[in-house]
Amino acid sequence: MEVAIVTVGDELLAGDTENTNATWLCARLSERGVAVERVTTVPDRVADVARVVNEYRAAYDAVVVTGGLGPTHDDLTMEGVAAAVGRDVVEHAEALTWLTEEGGYAADDLAEGTTHLPRGARFLPNEVGVAPGAVVEGVYVLPGVPAEMEAMFELVAEEFSGDPTFTEVVETPEPESGLVDRIAAVRETFDVTVGSYPGETVRLKVTARDAETAAAAAEWLRERVESV
Amino acid sequence: MEVAIVTVGDELLAGDTENTNATWLCARLSERGVAVERVTTVPDRVADVARVVNEYRAAYDAVVVTGGLGPTHDDLTMEGVAAAVGRDVVEHAEALTWLTEEGGYAADDLAEGTTHLPRGARFLPNEVGVAPGAVVEGVYVLPGVPAEMEAMFELVAEEFSGDPTFTEVVETPEPESGLVDRIAAVRETFDVTVGSYPGETVRLKVTARDAETAAAAAEWLRERVESV
Repeated sequence: MEVAIVTVGDELLAGDTENTNATWLCARLSERGVAVERVTTVPDRVADVARVVNEYRAAYDAVVVTGGLGPTHDDLTMEGVAAAVGRDVVEHAEALTWLTEEGGYAADDLAEGTTHLPRGARFLPNEVGVAPGAVVEGVYVLPGVPAEMEAMFELVAEEFSGDPTFTEVVETPEPESGLVDRIAAVRETFDVTVGSYPGETVRLKVTARDAETAAAAAEWLRERVESV
Repeated sequence: MEVAIVTVGDELLAGDTENTNATWLCARLSERGVAVERVTTVPDRVADVARVVNEYRAAYDAVVVTGGLGPTHDDLTMEGVAAAVGRDVVEHAEALTWLTEEGGYAADDLAEGTTHLPRGARFLPNEVGVAPGAVVEGVYVLPGVPAEMEAMFELVAEEFSGDPTFTEVVETPEPESGLVDRIAAVRETFDVTVGSYPGETVRLKVTARDAETAAAAAEWLRERVESV
């Protein structure tokens, strides 16, 4: 299963806010064996959300969109997603019922548009906040407040699954340039992919389809590189 | 000036690494009055880098690419950028001279391909590490190690400029839904854009083309919302 993530928000593009939602979603999806193929941040503009969501839903099995839900003028994500799938945005009866019965809100206290979702969408309750989420044509629309996004993702997490992978990390103080031959050799010897991530040390991330292969390849490397 | 940022790396898409490079670049570009229109993370694959860079260089004034430079098999960004602009990757004489004369490396110690850049590209020295950067047809290619990326960006920072904007933040404990009318009113009264960011409190970010307008609009709001 291949997925794209779209994070919506001018505050992300201004560098005001670290995009921790994207990292969290990438980690959760990867744990479930799902390949995240793109993470894209777009401005709070209907046309930009619509264009990117439309492109990605054609290319991938699902799109997870987060941010830009709520009552203010810059909360335009539902409208953008609706445009991407060629639907209008309408009052969602189930969302209204949930907020008034389970959520404990008086209907009159809800800001205009709070329960408007793309026509025919599946409603996702927000167990931590107000703004409802939605699923429509493979596009999952979640809030931007991290606690709300995380709780809502867990409601649908089982809809995301792929081939599990197993990863081992080998860390070494050697410079990356000197490791090239040993990385090539481990890739030839075992059925693994290897990522090489330089920083204070170099982290070699060995990934395989089964735990035994990942462990054997990591052990092979550990015997051949300087340890930290 | 409108810019897109492309961050390359499987470790980002796996959620192993927080994309702090994107946030840092967004902040520096915004400071310079540049509008960041997209931030996209792509896998360590030549075709993916090429496709996204090609799309963005057609749509925006410049593209900043970071990550995936270096000597290992998963460092494919230069190749992807070269493909995006229809050039091949060749030994860059100036890069080699810089690394051996200024960088203090013996030519024989450099891993194969270290000084290969897209043909005709402008070379950017890496003052903190080894892998050189490049500029070609409006595409700026920087390393992924944060200290290296930041130092290299500063070499070209003056090539990024736009209309400066001035921002003030007003924070309030009121719920976002209740603020809708006052946000509408401040936008009608002043020539400002307003972003509304809910969290523990709500942060209202007021942006204008001059400092006086931003300050006056923020003051107008502060008089009308509960303070923290």
